[in-house]
Amino acid sequence: MPVNIPPIADLAPIAGIELGAARAHIRNPERKDLLAIRLAEGAQVAGVFTRNRFCAAPVTVARRHLDAGLGVRALLVNSGCANAGTGEDGIARAIQTCTALAEHLGCLSQQVLPFSTGVIMEPLPVERVIAALPACIQNLKEDNWLAAAEAIMTTDTVPKAVSRRLRLDGAEVRITGIAKGAGMIHPRMATMLAFIATDASVSRAVLDRLVSDACRRSFNRVSVDGDTSTNDAFILMATGCGEASVTEDGPEYAIFARALIEVTGELAQAIVRDGEGATKFITVEVEGGGSEGECEQVGFAIARSPLVKTAFFASDPNLGRLLAAIGNAEIEDLDVASVQLYLNELLVAEAGGRSPGYDEAKAREAMAGQEIKVRVALGRGGASATVWTCDLSYEYVKINAEYRT
Amino acid sequence: MPVNIPPIADLAPIAGIELGAARAHIRNPERKDLLAIRLAEGAQVAGVFTRNRFCAAPVTVARRHLDAGLGVRALLVNSGCANAGTGEDGIARAIQTCTALAEHLGCLSQQVLPFSTGVIMEPLPVERVIAALPACIQNLKEDNWLAAAEAIMTTDTVPKAVSRRLRLDGAEVRITGIAKGAGMIHPRMATMLAFIATDASVSRAVLDRLVSDACRRSFNRVSVDGDTSTNDAFILMATGCGEASVTEDGPEYAIFARALIEVTGELAQAIVRDGEGATKFITVEVEGGGSEGECEQVGFAIARSPLVKTAFFASDPNLGRLLAAIGNAEIEDLDVASVQLYLNELLVAEAGGRSPGYDEAKAREAMAGQEIKVRVALGRGGASATVWTCDLSYEYVKINAEYRT
Repeated sequence: MPVNIPPIADLAPIAGIELGAARAHIRNPERKDLLAIRLAEGAQVAGVFTRNRFCAAPVTVARRHLDAGLGVRALLVNSGCANAGTGEDGIARAIQTCTALAEHLGCLSQQVLPFSTGVIMEPLPVERVIAALPACIQNLKEDNWLAAAEAIMTTDTVPKAVSRRLRLDGAEVRITGIAKGAGMIHPRMATMLAFIATDASVSRAVLDRLVSDACRRSFNRVSVDGDTSTNDAFILMATGCGEASVTEDGPEYAIFARALIEVTGELAQAIVRDGEGATKFITVEVEGGGSEGECEQVGFAIARSPLVKTAFFASDPNLGRLLAAIGNAEIEDLDVASVQLYLNELLVAEAGGRSPGYDEAKAREAMAGQEIKVRVALGRGGASATVWTCDLSYEYVKINAEYRT
Repeated sequence: MPVNIPPIADLAPIAGIELGAARAHIRNPERKDLLAIRLAEGAQVAGVFTRNRFCAAPVTVARRHLDAGLGVRALLVNSGCANAGTGEDGIARAIQTCTALAEHLGCLSQQVLPFSTGVIMEPLPVERVIAALPACIQNLKEDNWLAAAEAIMTTDTVPKAVSRRLRLDGAEVRITGIAKGAGMIHPRMATMLAFIATDASVSRAVLDRLVSDACRRSFNRVSVDGDTSTNDAFILMATGCGEASVTEDGPEYAIFARALIEVTGELAQAIVRDGEGATKFITVEVEGGGSEGECEQVGFAIARSPLVKTAFFASDPNLGRLLAAIGNAEIEDLDVASVQLYLNELLVAEAGGRSPGYDEAKAREAMAGQEIKVRVALGRGGASATVWTCDLSYEYVKINAEYRT
């Protein structure tokens, strides 16, 4: 059961983006597992990809096609099979699916970006993907974001989609996006898969900056289990079919960037809230750091620690494990006497030990909630960073002992 | 249930080392939880300690006393309370126990090294420790290593002790050691606690080198859960009461160092075999690396991955998770096409994907064993490293959700 994911409401269609889903019977015949996204001519696309050295074949091909600079006319996404750890044959299969979709849409194979998520090291059943393309194309429509979010799910228990409308210089701008991911979630890139579109007109250079800024503060700030997937990708599309445009030196940039980070942040948090076996959602706020980087280090030392995560699961205010995790963040000159630790608004540790006013009953109450905030004041400077994570439960072990990713 | 820990046999007493254990009723009144070790005058002592910034009070005091250079006449170890996250008060309490033992033994407080393991952030019950000292001292004898190993246990299910006899230049030399630790186990120093003694005569400088070499290849090569404790320490004592001596430039150095690494290696492996919730013991051999360091990186990327560890638990030959972990080892220029992956002696992946001769039934058989060897050939050079780990089971979550460390 996901932890307090807000209901999906009002997914604004994006002019210039059509989405179509179909059943390709890749793994689960019961649901749609293939998604095509068609982009209007002239749409700009930017993306960030996994840095895992064993990156999946579709990641290699998508990156190559994006770099070719011929423009992007379509995305093709399948769930159920990751086409990862499949060597040269996997690359060939990913390209075959691009070519087939390109033929249907009348564009070049290099104008299609492929994405896959699901079981690793199984060959992609190309013939089934190709056979389902006509149904996908027939299903293409602008008002299809929810179906798209459902088609890319794997161990996700709910679809993840977020939308924002904002005004830039008097014109309405829309941002709508979907994401999937529940396990193998750790930064060093995006989440598993996220596709976000806007109808604003944005140059590729500005889009590159937006995608990296937004990723850094959202998808790169979550951890479910500390594992980085072979297939992670976050794609941002700007169709330019709306009236507004975003340039780097205009005042619209900051407004648009903020709205985009709201969308990516909500999607990133939804992934953690739907984390495998999660029963609690934990926000780790680290402040008073010498740099944003060291605040992230502390945040992740907490978010990655199995001992901290099992304590959250048990609603146990095990301050020692939290302090030990902070001490493991590899900040060589950290003065532990200056560190303050809060559970929600409760000061629980300071001066290297338990706070004099510490109240076990209140701390236990804070740990019992489904939403827990851990705040660490490092007392070293003015930088801060927030990281989101979930607890580690029996269910996580069960899901991952049973599901072959 | 620990995984195949060899029975403890023939723990050779070390001339110049007496051990005494008693019940101090720190946490569990049912068993001895206080250990004093008395060293003959002139014994040399070296140690490595946790690098966790929130290191425990006894670690701070032990390091300080060791650095004082006044010689070490005794060690005092308690289980049940870690005296960590206890600020200045914790330091004062650790010193109080040293002073009390020093008075009994007629030595200086600075000649006593304190060690604690158990629950974090609870004040050390100094009065109970001090009250139990006479019983400890009365119990002091050379032939007491097993009782000592039992007295330092926390979540350990079995005591850990290893002994070796070897001959150096015609004279018999003995090495005997004990260790404790089952969770919060990850390198960047020693295991939780290990105390090893020899009757050889070894200078402090040579002892320093021996302790760091042995630690690097044993206690620093194991991971249960990726967490580094606040209390880790590995102490090596050389009484010089035997006939042999070890000098850095003599041929005895290599012989002695090899025997010491056998002892520390067996203790380190015993800790993993007794890892919290462990049902399998996994040896990760990484070879063909450009450096020993990058081989360790790959080994730990595998040993730390919760997804890999749950797959071991499930006996699932999930090669994708293994490849993904290798890809996450942050070796920037790793050519995944050159990597070969073996389960036991079975070649299962090569050229970026599954091996052509892959046989799922055989791979499943390999994963079903209690002892699994993962071998990774990087194809980049001649360096190698071995890391030991265990699987991640329901039981790990249960133990850590219930026990407040």
